[in-house]
Amino acid sequence: MKPELVAFPEGLKLDSGQSLPEFQLAYHRWGELADDGSNAILLCHTMTSDARAGGEAAPGQRPGWWSRAVGPGRLFDTNRYCVVCSNVLGGCGGSTGPSSPHPEDGRPYGLRFPQVSIQDMVRAQRMLQLHLGIPCWHLVAGGCMGGFQALSWSVHFPEAVKNVMAIGCSARSSSLSLAFFEVLRQSIYLDPGWREGDHYGHDRCWRGMALNAMVGTLFWMTPEVMEQRFARQRVAAAESGGFSREPRFALEKFLQQLSQGAYGQNFDPNTILYTSRACSDFDLHPQDQPLEEVFAEARARYLLVSYANDLRYPAEQLEQLGQALRKAGHQASHHVLSSPLGHGAFLYEPELLLPLLRDFLAD
Amino acid sequence: MKPELVAFPEGLKLDSGQSLPEFQLAYHRWGELADDGSNAILLCHTMTSDARAGGEAAPGQRPGWWSRAVGPGRLFDTNRYCVVCSNVLGGCGGSTGPSSPHPEDGRPYGLRFPQVSIQDMVRAQRMLQLHLGIPCWHLVAGGCMGGFQALSWSVHFPEAVKNVMAIGCSARSSSLSLAFFEVLRQSIYLDPGWREGDHYGHDRCWRGMALNAMVGTLFWMTPEVMEQRFARQRVAAAESGGFSREPRFALEKFLQQLSQGAYGQNFDPNTILYTSRACSDFDLHPQDQPLEEVFAEARARYLLVSYANDLRYPAEQLEQLGQALRKAGHQASHHVLSSPLGHGAFLYEPELLLPLLRDFLAD
Repeated sequence: MKPELVAFPEGLKLDSGQSLPEFQLAYHRWGELADDGSNAILLCHTMTSDARAGGEAAPGQRPGWWSRAVGPGRLFDTNRYCVVCSNVLGGCGGSTGPSSPHPEDGRPYGLRFPQVSIQDMVRAQRMLQLHLGIPCWHLVAGGCMGGFQALSWSVHFPEAVKNVMAIGCSARSSSLSLAFFEVLRQSIYLDPGWREGDHYGHDRCWRGMALNAMVGTLFWMTPEVMEQRFARQRVAAAESGGFSREPRFALEKFLQQLSQGAYGQNFDPNTILYTSRACSDFDLHPQDQPLEEVFAEARARYLLVSYANDLRYPAEQLEQLGQALRKAGHQASHHVLSSPLGHGAFLYEPELLLPLLRDFLAD
Repeated sequence: MKPELVAFPEGLKLDSGQSLPEFQLAYHRWGELADDGSNAILLCHTMTSDARAGGEAAPGQRPGWWSRAVGPGRLFDTNRYCVVCSNVLGGCGGSTGPSSPHPEDGRPYGLRFPQVSIQDMVRAQRMLQLHLGIPCWHLVAGGCMGGFQALSWSVHFPEAVKNVMAIGCSARSSSLSLAFFEVLRQSIYLDPGWREGDHYGHDRCWRGMALNAMVGTLFWMTPEVMEQRFARQRVAAAESGGFSREPRFALEKFLQQLSQGAYGQNFDPNTILYTSRACSDFDLHPQDQPLEEVFAEARARYLLVSYANDLRYPAEQLEQLGQALRKAGHQASHHVLSSPLGHGAFLYEPELLLPLLRDFLAD
């Protein structure tokens, strides 16, 4: 299932001051767009995914990253809505990013790619929206980096989004997130296969990405889930008496096997460098101006969702945002869900979100 | 300030089934040993330190790892007690470990070093105790891996320890700890300078260790402290418009500078491989036998200390141990302290421990 592509030869001026002379976006669509374009939903993806939100597993292919949520009768009901998901600018799933050819020499950009921001990603999505003839998104939804995008949409294009569902995110990256993203980048730098960003055409470069996934696991899988799933269950291992890299525990085996997943092998580590930097820089109120001022011009209604044990995005952050939104006169509700999956719960348990979103949109 | 050394030519049979034909321990002593040897305190160190618990900073040398706690009138009062700290077996601070010469060829053991357990470390310390003429430790104290050792002491040498202070630890490594330790090891494997464990005599091998320290920081520094100390404070950085590895935030700079600290440059990464494995394997009740049975023969009194926001060693774990100890008829109290420093608090705020230890020992 290949994404559709749309080229924007007019390019884009970026927050960094640099410009992309031209770029393309890759996107998927599920469901029919109404004649007046009023039933379109935009899903915004996280740092490690792409445009393929929906779709079941196929030979050699994993299911879409939010496949449990996209389909007839599901959270994003394709009987009623036209669901769109595009790969972000800077991504590696078909949209222009570090692995794309540089227009001057045709070689991959690598680290010559200009730094993009969350707002740049949204600007590019806005061009896609106009291309698709969608006057206003009925809903923009996403978690984590996707939530950053959803919030940005309502601030920067207030007339182009009616409803926002922002999950497990915040109005700025916390210091814990800054530290977490720096560790992700450092583990990529450490991989000799990364070759200072110039790994294209060489052997796959996945060890840094594997470490990345392991560190990520420490933060999305809660200690409770680790205990339930793995505890101290052992795996059979040759006992050498000496030091061994082989896993002794099922949890160690699970972590080591992450490195053999499709993610680490096919995902461009340079994309993580750019998107993690965009996330670190994300801050809707950089001079500490009150959030109600930042959202003063917004017109959307907001459904905010946190998870009680999300280590990276504690519920207080969205609670504060919800209060500010209401102070600014917006309709905004904040729900704190409980899931042992913590930060990753929205991907794996969309059924918990279903009644919230149904009530929110029916209001 | 060089440690004293003691050689044990008789060697040691290890839990792994292998033997060390000979070994030495490096240790420091502060304060005078009473004639009857009754006033000796053993401090057990964490994964990233050595025998130098006390002592102030000197040119080219950092202060001892628990220097705020060791001295006249301090937590471990050198006017009253003889305080001993030895580098663990497998360490790299003078005790025999992977960087020591293999007796057969004189080259560093590297990964030929046999795997050691927490109990093996304690067995070696027991030989040091006998060598020093100390019939019974008045107190064995430590946090984290040091706490594992302190608990082991009381189980395996019940007559040789009177009091135990175990801080921020548990009777077995949790699954979160298993995952955390695996990530530490993987970041060492990823460093090309590590050379599959055979890095001795080559350029310093510190990048994996630096990443190690960064990952560790995500777990000992609580999100609250990160916000207080760093928030989103920016550092002046050349704005290239392109991707930059340079820190943009003070927190990123802090993390990057960890890599230039003495720890990463002088510490043998192979030691981390061995000690983290020993910690992962640590389990005082491997067949889930009730803890009160495991401690049935123990004779020590226990002071257990947790920190309310310690991500790695939640207070419930020591609370359960305390209950089991009392059920087994032992005197055991558990105190939950609150410190924004979380898991690292015992090192930096020993004054919070002082009244607890004073009352405990005076009882």
